[in-house]
Amino acid sequence: MSAIATMTFTETEMRKPPAPRTKMPPLFDEPTTVQNWYKHINWTQSILLISTPLAAIYGMATTKLLTPTLIWSIIWYFFTGMGVTAGECHFYFLPNTKLLLVLGYHRHWSHRAYSATLPLKIILALTGAGSIQGSVRWWSRGHRAHHRYTDTDKDPYSAHRGVMFSHIIWMLVNRPKSRIGYADVADLDADPVVKWQHKYYPLVALTMAFVFPTLVAGLGWGDWRGGYFYAGMVRLVFLHHATFCVNSLAHWLGETPFDDHHTPRDHFITAFVTLGEGYHNFHHEFPQDYRNAILFYQYDPTKWFIKALSFIGLAYDLKKFPQNEVVKGQVYMAEKKINKIKEDLNWGVPIHKLPVFTWDEFQELTKQGKQWILIEGVLYDVSKFIDEHPGGPRYIKTAIGKDMTTAFNGAVYNHSNGARNLMSTMRIGVIRGGMEVENMKKDPIEEILDPKEYA
Amino acid sequence: MSAIATMTFTETEMRKPPAPRTKMPPLFDEPTTVQNWYKHINWTQSILLISTPLAAIYGMATTKLLTPTLIWSIIWYFFTGMGVTAGECHFYFLPNTKLLLVLGYHRHWSHRAYSATLPLKIILALTGAGSIQGSVRWWSRGHRAHHRYTDTDKDPYSAHRGVMFSHIIWMLVNRPKSRIGYADVADLDADPVVKWQHKYYPLVALTMAFVFPTLVAGLGWGDWRGGYFYAGMVRLVFLHHATFCVNSLAHWLGETPFDDHHTPRDHFITAFVTLGEGYHNFHHEFPQDYRNAILFYQYDPTKWFIKALSFIGLAYDLKKFPQNEVVKGQVYMAEKKINKIKEDLNWGVPIHKLPVFTWDEFQELTKQGKQWILIEGVLYDVSKFIDEHPGGPRYIKTAIGKDMTTAFNGAVYNHSNGARNLMSTMRIGVIRGGMEVENMKKDPIEEILDPKEYA
Ligand code: HEM
Ligand code: HEM
Ligand SMILES: [Fe+2]
Ligand SMILES: [Fe+2]
Ligand SMILES: [Fe+2]
Ligand SMILES: [Fe+2]
Repeated sequence: MSAIATMTFTETEMRKPPAPRTKMPPLFDEPTTVQNWYKHINWTQSILLISTPLAAIYGMATTKLLTPTLIWSIIWYFFTGMGVTAGECHFYFLPNTKLLLVLGYHRHWSHRAYSATLPLKIILALTGAGSIQGSVRWWSRGHRAHHRYTDTDKDPYSAHRGVMFSHIIWMLVNRPKSRIGYADVADLDADPVVKWQHKYYPLVALTMAFVFPTLVAGLGWGDWRGGYFYAGMVRLVFLHHATFCVNSLAHWLGETPFDDHHTPRDHFITAFVTLGEGYHNFHHEFPQDYRNAILFYQYDPTKWFIKALSFIGLAYDLKKFPQNEVVKGQVYMAEKKINKIKEDLNWGVPIHKLPVFTWDEFQELTKQGKQWILIEGVLYDVSKFIDEHPGGPRYIKTAIGKDMTTAFNGAVYNHSNGARNLMSTMRIGVIRGGMEVENMKKDPIEEILDPKEYA
Repeated sequence: MSAIATMTFTETEMRKPPAPRTKMPPLFDEPTTVQNWYKHINWTQSILLISTPLAAIYGMATTKLLTPTLIWSIIWYFFTGMGVTAGECHFYFLPNTKLLLVLGYHRHWSHRAYSATLPLKIILALTGAGSIQGSVRWWSRGHRAHHRYTDTDKDPYSAHRGVMFSHIIWMLVNRPKSRIGYADVADLDADPVVKWQHKYYPLVALTMAFVFPTLVAGLGWGDWRGGYFYAGMVRLVFLHHATFCVNSLAHWLGETPFDDHHTPRDHFITAFVTLGEGYHNFHHEFPQDYRNAILFYQYDPTKWFIKALSFIGLAYDLKKFPQNEVVKGQVYMAEKKINKIKEDLNWGVPIHKLPVFTWDEFQELTKQGKQWILIEGVLYDVSKFIDEHPGGPRYIKTAIGKDMTTAFNGAVYNHSNGARNLMSTMRIGVIRGGMEVENMKKDPIEEILDPKEYA
């Protein structure tokens, strides 16, 4: 027995199984009626999220896409993206908002996965705002509740309400504030950059989302309209839905290599769409880790970028969850997979459920044609196996009705582990006493005293 | 608890651990002396195995390699090879002796992995002979002993004698016949094709190894010398060492995904060199299976070839070991790997080894500065963790000196499995009674009767 097998854990220390998919309470406190339906709609967010794709389509249909504008749109996409995923980059690397979204909003402010210097914070707050996903404070507050109450009704984008709800519907409706779980944002309220960005959010957001990218393309190469539509509008719509995928796709598609208690999953497609945020099973298990993907070949540009920022001194104190605990998660999940496979295999009739035969019954039954062999007290029915026996049918035929324990274990041939696995599927009974035992044979006195004799 | 965990197996049914690497007895019965050394050498085989590479080198240095001869040499290499690995092919597929070696000698005759029709047998016996590796009977007899007594002294090419011994030295020496384990070849002695090939082996071998390939190249495109050296000699040397790799490389390089009791290993490099015989861990565990590789993307051309032969009716009764048992092997080996990883992880001090504190001692110690938290009767030292706590230092600081069982389990936050894994590494003690228990506090009478009071 290994040291692990004999280890004890308290109930609290023990891992919890997958949470059941509970029936969710209704979305709103009062039922939706013809009179009150409009109150349940978050009009600002709905108009924003519906009008932007329409504007983007209109812009694409009516505006010629110039090569420099295309390049600039992609650059600005990555920039505002990283602002949400992790932090700044345009001064030192590629200008990139998508990157900035996850860098800043997500890994820095929501999870404190690393610390940022003041210039980095300002850049993150600016570019992240260009993703129009709310202020750092609003975003992080909801996101912390999502982590703390994952999948429950207190999770603002609970995956248990379906993939469309967690993707976008949660933003179109007006949920009672009291229904979203509590999350502490005292640290954010104490951050002057966050405070400033929250205060001037509409102005900052519109500037970074539309004014700035339009100015760059207009002043740069005279493409004002293209700058507005492609680097502004189309980029924004792509960025929105890419980020929303972290809440929908990442809770729906893929594997659970670290934990299966909640819905988050790892998938490289999600990672590809979201600048590395798709290793979401890892992320929910170890949210304060600055990484989402731990293998070097997995796609996590946000991680690479934070690492690069730390080299140039803009980010520091990058947090990692202890590897010991990461491996524990992997090990438990791997064991679970194996146990699932084991349950589905044929291990033969359990020994305690086998019928018991006496040695004489065994002899009698084999004489009547049963093809049974005795090995270590257990009877094996080899009738279907004789012709398949890799040692040839001859050996096994001569073994019928005999105790072959030593022959099987080396006297004739020391069988492989494959043969040992196979034999348990052929169990048919056990022998009283385990072998031919003299004193368990019929009592000779009893035979002499057979009543018929005295009849 | 799963059904599997409560299952019982007899000692015989249980898998055996890796066999220890025992010290081998000396190769020969009597010690080698200046007088008798030459008796220990197998002169025929040594001359053959040493002269052929020399002749091949000489041939390559002195003979221009024509393109048709190169192509023919490769074809004839595969042909004679398949004769050893599995069976015939040149009439219906590519002419190919390497293929024929493994097809015929190995999978058909040694292991009865499939049945062959008479024409197939004849072709296998002819082409296999062109590999000059002895008659079917001699080859299979040794090979069956190798499987039956793998790694022991009775194994003619025991890997426990080192990689060079199992590659070639075993053929250069004259081992006492009695030392090789017994293997039943009655089925082969009853096979007229095998009997005929054994009887005329030297003639058949020389014809197929040299005369036939020289004739093809000579009569075909006038390259008698190239045919002799390249399709004959060079091909033979390559084929020899490729086949020998099954005994050396395949017992030395790679993984053991099905069983680790003996030395055989799976590696795609060995498979590539040996026409698919490199999934040797599988093969030793399930030797009568006509496959060596079970995954479609693994390289096992011999298997594909046998399958093709069965489609055209030349081979039949292809044997497979039950998938149920193959999976058992994989599952056991995967579990073993996981357990190895688990042993190396930090699981914290085992609960039964923790010191016991009273509730009052716990209170006193935290007052003195210890940063301990009580959860389900166990004390956790969080001093190194406070600043790392992903829920923030505030929560955990206020928890010091308190029983946080319900807070940890949901009253404040229902921690993830990752947090549960982590906590056991912080164990520092247990509380007598498991919690603050009124009746376990100091007996008030005792306090009143404190001797000092009465002094
Ligand atoms: C439930 C009963 C049995 C099972 C499941 C079984 C299974 C197997 C298997 C799977 C092999 C292939 C080699 C290996 O995996 O080790 C084998 C080989 C062999 N078995 Fe059995 N066997 C059984 C009973 C016996 C008995 C009773 C004997 C002897 C009286 C026997 C003698 C042999 C021999 C001599 C070989 C050939 C070894 C070789 O030439 O490679 N087996 N058996
Ligand atoms: C040995 C003691 C503790 C360990 C190892 C621990 C570990 C963790 C970890 C790893 C997280 C990250 C989220 C997760 O993995 O679930 C976390 C979050 C948290 N913990 Fe603890 N914790 C401990 C004690 C406590 C105590 C005593 C409290 C409350 C008094 C507490 C309150 C919280 C809260 C509120 C969160 C934040 C949840 C969120 O916002 O996502 N923890 N803790
Ligand atoms: Fe999530
Ligand atoms: Fe997150
Ligand atoms: Fe082998
Ligand atoms: Fe073999």
